[in-house]
Amino acid sequence: MIEVYLLGAGPGDVELLTLKAVKLLERADVVLYDALVNPEILDFCKENVILENVGKRKDKHLKKQEEINLLLIHYAQTHKCVVRLKGGTPFVFGRGYEEVRALREAGFTPVIYSGVSSTTAVPESFMIPLVDRKYNDAYRTITGHHMEVFKKIVCCYTPRENLVIMMGVHNLASISHYLLTIGFPPTMPIAILSKGTTIEAQSIRATLEAIANKEPQFFEEIRALTPAIIFVGESIEMNLS
Amino acid sequence: MIEVYLLGAGPGDVELLTLKAVKLLERADVVLYDALVNPEILDFCKENVILENVGKRKDKHLKKQEEINLLLIHYAQTHKCVVRLKGGTPFVFGRGYEEVRALREAGFTPVIYSGVSSTTAVPESFMIPLVDRKYNDAYRTITGHHMEVFKKIVCCYTPRENLVIMMGVHNLASISHYLLTIGFPPTMPIAILSKGTTIEAQSIRATLEAIANKEPQFFEEIRALTPAIIFVGESIEMNLS
Repeated sequence: MIEVYLLGAGPGDVELLTLKAVKLLERADVVLYDALVNPEILDFCKENVILENVGKRKDKHLKKQEEINLLLIHYAQTHKCVVRLKGGTPFVFGRGYEEVRALREAGFTPVIYSGVSSTTAVPESFMIPLVDRKYNDAYRTITGHHMEVFKKIVCCYTPRENLVIMMGVHNLASISHYLLTIGFPPTMPIAILSKGTTIEAQSIRATLEAIANKEPQFFEEIRALTPAIIFVGESIEMNLS
Repeated sequence: MIEVYLLGAGPGDVELLTLKAVKLLERADVVLYDALVNPEILDFCKENVILENVGKRKDKHLKKQEEINLLLIHYAQTHKCVVRLKGGTPFVFGRGYEEVRALREAGFTPVIYSGVSSTTAVPESFMIPLVDRKYNDAYRTITGHHMEVFKKIVCCYTPRENLVIMMGVHNLASISHYLLTIGFPPTMPIAILSKGTTIEAQSIRATLEAIANKEPQFFEEIRALTPAIIFVGESIEMNLS
C-alpha cells in the first residue's frame, strides 16, 4: 500500500505542528519540503529519511511546479510513505491541488493532513481577530501578488469585512493607493505582519492613508519583511504593537 | 504570574490538535470549553483540573457570552493557569476577541494559541481546495447566520472567488436563491460539508440551481447536519463524495 500525503507544516512555530503531522513525519520515507517550512520540523523525521528541499522558487515558477509534480510521482513509485510538507496548510494557496491532480493522473490517491494556516494564525499571533463581531462579519483571503488579479476581486469597499492579503508586500504601494480609490476610508487601519509566529516576527500598523503617503524608500525597504501578510480592517487595534 | 490562554481545539479530529495545545492542557488548572470541542481532547488534562462546559448556547447568546466573560475573569482571579478552549481557532468567529477585551479590562493579558481552523480544514478534509489556481485567487469566509448580514457583504457575483459560509445551514434555501439572483451561475458547484474531520463526516455536492430547486423538506432535514459549512465555488469537484 503506497501512501502519499500532503501535510501542512503550519505557519512557522514548530509547536503549532499537529499531532498527526509529528506521527506522519516519524515514519515518512521521503519528505519534500518548501522553503517556508521551519527546518526544525524536519527533526521529527527518522534517521534514514530522504529529505528534499523543493522550495527554491526563483523566477521559473511554472516549470518548477511541474518538476515538483514529477518528483512526487517518482518518489511515490519508488517508496512506501511519501510526504509533501507544505507551509501553512496544503490547500490555502501553494498549489496543493495541482499536486493532487498530478498524483491522481499517475494513479495515486493522495491524502491531506491539514495544518494551522498562516492566514489565520499570523493575525492571531499579533492579537488581530479575523472576525470581531464589533467590527466585522467576514474576511476575504486573497493573493496580492498580481495587481490585475487583486483588482478584479476587490472592486469596491465592503464595510464589515476584513482583508487578508497574502504575498502582496511588493505591491503595498499599489494596494494601499488602489484601496483608497475604490472607497476604503483613509482612516482604515492596515497592518503589515512579518514572519508571524517566529522569533523574527514584527508588525507595522498605520492608517491606509498614512501608508499610501509613504516615500518610495519605505516601500523598497518593506520588501525585506517577506514573508508577510497585509491585513486591512477595523479589527486592528492601533495602540498595540 | 497568572496565565490566561485562548486555545484553539481544532476542527474535531483529536490528532489535529497542536503540540502547544497538548502541553498547555497538561498543565492547565482550569479549562472552559465549547460545545463544539471534541471531548476526547480533555483527556490531555491533568487529573485535578477544573473542567467547565460553557457551550450550551440555546437562545440567550448575549447573556451567555457575558457569563462566560465573568467566569473567565473569576477563574483568572483564583487560579494560576486558565485555558479557554475554543473550537477551531480563537479569532475566527466564536467571539474570542470579546473575551480578550473583557479579560484586559479586568487587568489580565490573555495569550492566543492558534488551532487548525475548521474554515480551512473542513473543506480540505473533503478534498476541496480553498484556492486552486485553475479556478480562483481568493476565498471569502462569512457567517451565514443572518441573511441581512450576508447580503450586505456578498452583494454581487465575484468570479474566481470561493465562498466559505459558516453557521448558515438553516439559511441554505435563502442563500442558494439569493446567490442566483445576484448573478452566480446556476451551474456553480455548492457543497454542504457536515461534521468535517470527524467519523460522522458527510457531504452533499450539487449545482447551485439544483439546491435552490429542492423541496422544503430537504431544507428541513438538512438542519440536522449542523455543524456544517456551505462551500460555493468552482474548485469543488462534483465527481467526488
